Amino acid sequence: MRIVIDAMGGDNAPDVVVTGALEAAKEWGDITLILVGDAAKIEPLISQAGGKPQNVEVVHAAEIIEADDEPVKAVRRKKDASMVVAGRMVHNREADAMISAGNTGALMTTGLLVVGRIKGIDRPALAPMIPSIDGKGMLALDLGANMDATAEQLLQYAIMGSIYRNKVHGIAKPRVGLLNVGTEAMKGNELTKAAYPLLEQAPIHFIGNVESRDVLRGPCDVLVCDGFAGNIMLKSVEGAASVIFSTLKTEFLRNFATKLAALVLKPGITRFRRSFDYTEHGAAPLLGINGLLLKSHGSSNATAIKNAVRQARIALQNDLVTSISTEISNGSEL
Amino acid sequence: MRIVIDAMGGDNAPDVVVTGALEAAKEWGDITLILVGDAAKIEPLISQAGGKPQNVEVVHAAEIIEADDEPVKAVRRKKDASMVVAGRMVHNREADAMISAGNTGALMTTGLLVVGRIKGIDRPALAPMIPSIDGKGMLALDLGANMDATAEQLLQYAIMGSIYRNKVHGIAKPRVGLLNVGTEAMKGNELTKAAYPLLEQAPIHFIGNVESRDVLRGPCDVLVCDGFAGNIMLKSVEGAASVIFSTLKTEFLRNFATKLAALVLKPGITRFRRSFDYTEHGAAPLLGINGLLLKSHGSSNATAIKNAVRQARIALQNDLVTSISTEISNGSEL
Repeated sequence: MRIVIDAMGGDNAPDVVVTGALEAAKEWGDITLILVGDAAKIEPLISQAGGKPQNVEVVHAAEIIEADDEPVKAVRRKKDASMVVAGRMVHNREADAMISAGNTGALMTTGLLVVGRIKGIDRPALAPMIPSIDGKGMLALDLGANMDATAEQLLQYAIMGSIYRNKVHGIAKPRVGLLNVGTEAMKGNELTKAAYPLLEQAPIHFIGNVESRDVLRGPCDVLVCDGFAGNIMLKSVEGAASVIFSTLKTEFLRNFATKLAALVLKPGITRFRRSFDYTEHGAAPLLGINGLLLKSHGSSNATAIKNAVRQARIALQNDLVTSISTEISNGSEL
Repeated sequence: MRIVIDAMGGDNAPDVVVTGALEAAKEWGDITLILVGDAAKIEPLISQAGGKPQNVEVVHAAEIIEADDEPVKAVRRKKDASMVVAGRMVHNREADAMISAGNTGALMTTGLLVVGRIKGIDRPALAPMIPSIDGKGMLALDLGANMDATAEQLLQYAIMGSIYRNKVHGIAKPRVGLLNVGTEAMKGNELTKAAYPLLEQAPIHFIGNVESRDVLRGPCDVLVCDGFAGNIMLKSVEGAASVIFSTLKTEFLRNFATKLAALVLKPGITRFRRSFDYTEHGAAPLLGINGLLLKSHGSSNATAIKNAVRQARIALQNDLVTSISTEISNGSEL
């Protein structure tokens, strides 16, 4: 298994990316990690860490796609950017998977334009795990690749998400829910009303509509939505949590008695608050691309990068991309 | 000013509706209140409360639209339902405004089919006040009348909401925001991208896109959205608040020390939690109907009914419906 890593992507690149990659290479001898980026920066980091392990390679790439670069323009023009070079290696089958903590839009563009879609997939979907209070979380897609979707695209998201949860997380029969404004079958807008019967007939375990009110309670394993609605939902939850916790903090600091009381309650609240932390839930696959692409959070630390390698390894061991491709092309039972 | 009240609408009808109406009649001598519903139930309630004031009338209506009735069917078939009779009085100009705490869908249907739209309005919009942490709240529309909307309809929502905030709440220059996934002009789905330039050119104070993450902080006075996105946003916030507060409660009950600590913090947290309570923010106008229709919350108590009368009175004094009608028909400066 050859996994290529965009060493220049993310807020703390290349340092933490290299550190995380070296830890992963040490842990799993059955993978080869290819670090792509500025060799003059990457090589010294490897030397400092004790030298290059047998299963680590460095491929030089002269350019970098920055966080604020316009995605399509950047991918088209910066042909020697670490992210684009990595994508090309996946396209050319010189690597089986790619990980980047860089510009999300540029990674999606790299997926589309450099690696290419799975045949039969209209639109790839970004599928992060979002938190739920039972600690299990759910895979939500699409969250960010496309703002608008058709009912057929929502169906494809459902199938891809279901296969991912099955192959990577080992869930035998992932529960698939459709983000909606009510639980009854005929609720929703034109899009969700058209998608519902398609999901019912699909070779997935469709459990029906999921109200945004209930999402945090973890009612399903795969949450299907168009990028716009999913973003509204997720940011509403994040915004509410942020406002509530910051107001709580103000209440805690109100006077001496509340400060003492807060000290007693703090451990429990901190533990709970952490469960809302979206950044702790791993890398998000870009599903529908003809190759495995994982997006790590921009603020990833070395552990997050190592965990992304773990995810990629499991997905490769279980033939994720081939499974999606087969399912989409023949519509057979999951 | 003649305000008709659906005495049979709401969880606690007719008791609290009658009580609230009588309080309102006592407070404001310049209005006449018409209670529509089962006279055999309404009259005794009025007698118990000390008799009928001069400015209260009772109109008998034999039928009731129930909370779980299918809206269109109910309004079409139950021609003698209290809600339908009240709507007909507004249509016939026997009343200037109507208040109901009954079935929301049926009230919207009554507005459309019995009272009728303002000429030039495609779709009426339900416009509740939603809470913000600054305590001011914002008028959000559409929240419930139509799941899908066109850019032109969002423009109409913006104009109607802006006039409402001006006429009823006295805000000279209401800030209008468009619910979206980012603040930049070109963010969003096809709908919001098409609506943005229309809002920019409209005779309103358009402040641009508002991210759902920021909604609770009260960034605008009027929040424009299609019914689907608005519902997803609001229910996500409510769901997050519900999960957080119930988990806090669990943390508070963890042991003796946390229980003591919770006692100290409880008043502040209760006060804060109440600010999230959607039900405390008054009745929601159904804007775009050719007559004033206000939807009170199903669980309204007598004070909520009285407050709805207060809202109706202010809206009538300030010629809300005529203002909307004029603005829509001539597109003049607000």
